[in-house]
Amino acid sequence: MNYRMIINIIAKILSVEALFMLPALLIAYAKGESASFMAFAIVMGILLVISLPFVLIKPKRKQFFAREGLVAVGLSWITVSLFGALPFTISGAIPNYVNAFFETVSGFTTTGATILGDVEALPMSALYWRSFTHWLGGMGVLVFMMALSPLTGKDSGENMHLLRAESPGIKISKLVPRMKRSAGILYAIYIFLTVLQASLLVIGKVPLFDAVTISFGTAGTGGFAIKNDSLASYSAYTQWVTTVFMFLFSLNFNIYFLLLLRRFKKVFRDDELRSFFIIVLLAVVMVTVNTRGYFQSFGEGLRHSAFQVISIISTSGFCTVDFDLWPQISRTVLVMLMFIGACAGSTGGGPKVVRILVLFRNAKRAIYKAINPQRVKLIYLDGEILEEDTATAVSNYFLLYFLTLAFATLLVTVDGFSMETNFTAALSCLSNVGPGMDGVGATMNYSGFSAFSKIILSVTMLIGRLEIYPILVLAFPQIWKK
Amino acid sequence: MNYRMIINIIAKILSVEALFMLPALLIAYAKGESASFMAFAIVMGILLVISLPFVLIKPKRKQFFAREGLVAVGLSWITVSLFGALPFTISGAIPNYVNAFFETVSGFTTTGATILGDVEALPMSALYWRSFTHWLGGMGVLVFMMALSPLTGKDSGENMHLLRAESPGIKISKLVPRMKRSAGILYAIYIFLTVLQASLLVIGKVPLFDAVTISFGTAGTGGFAIKNDSLASYSAYTQWVTTVFMFLFSLNFNIYFLLLLRRFKKVFRDDELRSFFIIVLLAVVMVTVNTRGYFQSFGEGLRHSAFQVISIISTSGFCTVDFDLWPQISRTVLVMLMFIGACAGSTGGGPKVVRILVLFRNAKRAIYKAINPQRVKLIYLDGEILEEDTATAVSNYFLLYFLTLAFATLLVTVDGFSMETNFTAALSCLSNVGPGMDGVGATMNYSGFSAFSKIILSVTMLIGRLEIYPILVLAFPQIWKK
Repeated sequence: MNYRMIINIIAKILSVEALFMLPALLIAYAKGESASFMAFAIVMGILLVISLPFVLIKPKRKQFFAREGLVAVGLSWITVSLFGALPFTISGAIPNYVNAFFETVSGFTTTGATILGDVEALPMSALYWRSFTHWLGGMGVLVFMMALSPLTGKDSGENMHLLRAESPGIKISKLVPRMKRSAGILYAIYIFLTVLQASLLVIGKVPLFDAVTISFGTAGTGGFAIKNDSLASYSAYTQWVTTVFMFLFSLNFNIYFLLLLRRFKKVFRDDELRSFFIIVLLAVVMVTVNTRGYFQSFGEGLRHSAFQVISIISTSGFCTVDFDLWPQISRTVLVMLMFIGACAGSTGGGPKVVRILVLFRNAKRAIYKAINPQRVKLIYLDGEILEEDTATAVSNYFLLYFLTLAFATLLVTVDGFSMETNFTAALSCLSNVGPGMDGVGATMNYSGFSAFSKIILSVTMLIGRLEIYPILVLAFPQIWKK
Repeated sequence: MNYRMIINIIAKILSVEALFMLPALLIAYAKGESASFMAFAIVMGILLVISLPFVLIKPKRKQFFAREGLVAVGLSWITVSLFGALPFTISGAIPNYVNAFFETVSGFTTTGATILGDVEALPMSALYWRSFTHWLGGMGVLVFMMALSPLTGKDSGENMHLLRAESPGIKISKLVPRMKRSAGILYAIYIFLTVLQASLLVIGKVPLFDAVTISFGTAGTGGFAIKNDSLASYSAYTQWVTTVFMFLFSLNFNIYFLLLLRRFKKVFRDDELRSFFIIVLLAVVMVTVNTRGYFQSFGEGLRHSAFQVISIISTSGFCTVDFDLWPQISRTVLVMLMFIGACAGSTGGGPKVVRILVLFRNAKRAIYKAINPQRVKLIYLDGEILEEDTATAVSNYFLLYFLTLAFATLLVTVDGFSMETNFTAALSCLSNVGPGMDGVGATMNYSGFSAFSKIILSVTMLIGRLEIYPILVLAFPQIWKK
């Protein structure tokens, strides 16, 4: 294990984290939030003092294998969250450090699960930092760093391993002839869409600060809001705009790349995109019909149904109504959507639509093989043969996903909440959605859980966000042997 | 597809079913239950008239492939249940035919889920038939028939295919040098244990009829009781005896076979057996500790905890207390046990302990492969290398299991019950347990569901009992093409 290299990477990320605290520091200064100002200044100081020596000392060996990539990703997300939580506690905004850690993990993993009952009580700088973690987490602090870092040239092994561990989904490889340039294009799209949404919201008379934080939460498919009722009290226009952008941020960014290159045929041939459209459409129709008695007009029902369906499947988790009070069919549909998640290569979480597709094709093949034991049957995706290794990887992903879900549910049961609360809390955290049902429903929060359960759920969020392996690997003794 | 052969097999099973109705007919006669007597006589007549011509006409081709085996198994369980339900409806014991069908499927699949609120109102002959379906289902009507049938000699391909589709688990193959003789030994063990349990119950002053029906329900790991409170009002002795026998019927029958042959080493080396002991022990300890406040004494708590844990993991589903009222940890542990089930090669349902073992080893290997992408890693079971095909088959099993669970849950949601009710109903039916939680908890029943949901849950029970493929295959268009 190349520890020096891993430490060097983590140090770089921590120094970048310090820089990213600058806007919050400035807001604290401008708004005269002295406790926050002090807190951000202290943490930025600590981060720079700790990290800079390790950044400057170059590692001798640059060798980097899969295991180093996984460990670097896993540890850096944990470290970034540990330090990112400090300003909340030092400033007194979230006095309990476990709560602050939960909130920060929830931010960076773009989950949006909160322990705050009264969000509006937070100083503006803390609110900004909280929402900004979504935006940073959205595309991954590490992919970010890689695009900036002069550490390595072109497509060195290191970056490939990092990206493979980090990237949400199995398709990013297609985008990678020149890693740095690709990352640059991805970020350009990401920033462009964020600015576009914020502008549209400001045009709709949303205050600038609200518009920016909502856009951060949407871009990262996170879901932290700065109002206690999430997005319920904003205008229908604001809710529709957010619905559209939650949808846009759920799509594979490759799609935008291909659209820019005018390769429309390839876009139309994308199985995942088509399936995502169909799933969203079906779910919106089902929920709209099922909740029709709950709203004054068809338009209002459609708006809230579309908002909640897309909020959940994109794994954002914003709310405009208390969907926990909806009839059972709608509630169940929403929970099922948590098992799907957004498209691979987006900022969304969950197993991803493409994996669900491969899961179904694996299942269908299993039945085919039962009927025809001797015949070979290939699986196709986007009109091409899917490699067997990928099909197996998807099966393995789901095995680990379900095992994690089962253990997380069992462990948080110690707090004695209802089974629905525990199960949907674990599921929502694992898929990085945010709200669940019952005790963690739309109008509730995670503050009722014990410190133990909050840590379990924080780990669950990290497992989900990092596509399982980088965190589970840390518990493998082999990793820590020479 | 060799339709004639399939029809011939189904006809044989139906004629055997007619014979198995004889005890119920005699009980109806002895007890003067005239409506039941008429009903059983009519159905036996119908069965024999329909089946005998097809039994006598021998199929020309005896060719039999995997697909024929699957279809024969799937269709025969459905057919047997369709006819087995008739006496209930004709006699008026269960006037609604969908209810009677649900109850009969629940019987043959050894699930034990019931639509009866007042079991005790049933005539004795109907109660006998209801419990007897458990006993018949326990080892599978088809394996049964195979042992009796002069259809084929020795280990013909047909029997192998039937057995592979039917046998609960992946291990039965070890037992099969001489199919018929092995089946004979299995049945000898099965009958011996059933008689032993009934005798011990009678010694404990349980009325003979109760002793016999409880033993049927235990042997098949079914769980139909003839009292409204299941086994709650029987003595502690009766409950302990039943606990022990539920445990014994959860073990792989190979174990008894090996014990008879004095091959103790092989028994000790059995991974599944060891894991089953550990899981049961852990669960009993957890539940006993967690429910300690609910009982007068430690002994009473231990008795009910051991009974419920073993009742659920064996997939019997008998109850001595309303475990739905237990604290959340115990409730969650019980639900988790439904995901495990008994040992392969037993009469129990669920995914089976050995599959859970392979699932964990698959998962562990997946993490190992993430760390060491280039290395080959084998999976071991019972000290031997597990074939890759088996490891893949287990993954596929779980994919199909979870998909079935998700769809069943979603479909029964139309009735508007709580999510916990729908989820545990689907899970309990899929794993052939019987009771679930909340609306289908220990003191509740399935009568509240609509006819649609009852049919969905019946299909779910069949999918679970037949290890998924024989039922799902029927929905595959390819099966019905020439």
